[in-house]
Amino acid sequence: MNNITEKLLAAVSDWTGSFKGAFNIREDGGCAGRRSTEHIKIEPKTGEPGLDIRILPGTRGESVSIPACVTHGNVDDLVYNDFFVGEGADVTIVAGCGVHTEDGEPARHNGIHRFFLGKNSHVVYLEKHLGTGSGSGLRSIDPVTEVTLAEGAVLEMDTSQIGGVDRTTRKMSASLGPRARLIIHERLLTEADQTAETDFVVTLDGEDSGVDLISRSVARGRSKQHYRSVIYGNARCTGHSECDAIIADDGQVSAAPELTANHPDAALIHEAAIGKIAGEQILKLRTLGLTEQQAEEKIVAGFLK
Amino acid sequence: MNNITEKLLAAVSDWTGSFKGAFNIREDGGCAGRRSTEHIKIEPKTGEPGLDIRILPGTRGESVSIPACVTHGNVDDLVYNDFFVGEGADVTIVAGCGVHTEDGEPARHNGIHRFFLGKNSHVVYLEKHLGTGSGSGLRSIDPVTEVTLAEGAVLEMDTSQIGGVDRTTRKMSASLGPRARLIIHERLLTEADQTAETDFVVTLDGEDSGVDLISRSVARGRSKQHYRSVIYGNARCTGHSECDAIIADDGQVSAAPELTANHPDAALIHEAAIGKIAGEQILKLRTLGLTEQQAEEKIVAGFLK
Repeated sequence: MNNITEKLLAAVSDWTGSFKGAFNIREDGGCAGRRSTEHIKIEPKTGEPGLDIRILPGTRGESVSIPACVTHGNVDDLVYNDFFVGEGADVTIVAGCGVHTEDGEPARHNGIHRFFLGKNSHVVYLEKHLGTGSGSGLRSIDPVTEVTLAEGAVLEMDTSQIGGVDRTTRKMSASLGPRARLIIHERLLTEADQTAETDFVVTLDGEDSGVDLISRSVARGRSKQHYRSVIYGNARCTGHSECDAIIADDGQVSAAPELTANHPDAALIHEAAIGKIAGEQILKLRTLGLTEQQAEEKIVAGFLK
Repeated sequence: MNNITEKLLAAVSDWTGSFKGAFNIREDGGCAGRRSTEHIKIEPKTGEPGLDIRILPGTRGESVSIPACVTHGNVDDLVYNDFFVGEGADVTIVAGCGVHTEDGEPARHNGIHRFFLGKNSHVVYLEKHLGTGSGSGLRSIDPVTEVTLAEGAVLEMDTSQIGGVDRTTRKMSASLGPRARLIIHERLLTEADQTAETDFVVTLDGEDSGVDLISRSVARGRSKQHYRSVIYGNARCTGHSECDAIIADDGQVSAAPELTANHPDAALIHEAAIGKIAGEQILKLRTLGLTEQQAEEKIVAGFLK
């Protein structure tokens, strides 16, 4: 494992020289370390790059880390990871990703993740994305996530893009069974000429299923963000989507949230707000001795926390 | 003027046997009455069906009524009306539309309206849409509205579809100059197998321009509604869009509001909520002696008022 990977791992997956529990470290398309445990089996796929991660029914309090790093230019990494979470399991999945280039060549990671959550299982999914290096090559991370939640399953996704990613296209689709719940918190910061596209499609098929999508983003420099979400309510269900964006400099943000109620007992709500930081917030922090720039940094950090 | 037109006029344009001010009554594609006034000139277009309505600069407190009625099946009425509102004018435009068929043949009105509001002018635009008659022919009203607001111009649009329209496709686009304001209140009721599509595109180009879109709708029976709005903020501006829908029976509603901030001083907000009438609201009215159906009628009427 090279030392760029070590730095990226520390930033995106709380690596401290080792992982607790099961793990697989992907480095430039290869495997730089793997461990299965008694209850969590990680096996390479045959026929395509990627892993099958099987979490046995009833597994509780364990975690699996599957970070992926691209450490130099001219890498276009594509991986298919499938997660099979057994009935009643309660686990944490850590899936950070870092891309690094020091030359003019692009570095890209494209992870296609499928989650199959068994009955009454509960997963906390943590994902941090980071781009580093001084090269002019494009750093891009393009995740595709497909989620299938069985009856009573709960998936909490916490995703953040913490800087340096020039381009990201994120697609997520989920279908929810009876009493299943999906909670997504996404935080996104774009700067300079970066672009970010987010595309969520959530289908509430199960009786009493529910989704809560919360997106917070900041667009600085000349960066551009486009957020799109669609929630289909096909049964008695609840859907909530919230999209708050701060624009600064010449940043541009577009939010297109769609709600479709195909059932009389579907209750769907959406809110969106796009704007710059309120002048009075800046003023208040400046009276406490901060410069305008420090005040803005403080507010943005709080907003994305 | 036939007596179906008289009934439709009373319902959609508050006609009481006569109109105050300037008017043009369109009946089955023809003209059933017209009056210009000193300050409001109505003239037929040459080369295409429709009118040029010129409101002289400074005209205040006057109104112009331009209702259109289709009174039998097998009519597909298409009309182009252009409104030129002079600088500083302050007027009311009443533009109701009724379609009636008593046989299996369709009755359709398709009005293409363009509004050019001069500097600091103010227009209140009232529009009611109604379908009547016992025939099985499709009743449809498909308005296309293009709005251009000069500096400081204000357009308040109040539109409602009060029943009986089997199909409606409504397209509205607006571009706003400096300090211009556009306020839209739309109310929509669909029943049985009716369908309604609404498509708003508002471009806030002028400094300190603002838009407020408020849509309230009820979908009953097996009716389907699709609401789409796009607000572009290209300058220091404010945009607000609000979409509330009640679904009953097997009604379906889809809301897709989009906000695009292309300027750091654009402040855009959206809210949407789709759901059925809360059980406790029904219960409260039932304890006052209403049946469930009466309670629902009462709530729907209040919601669309």
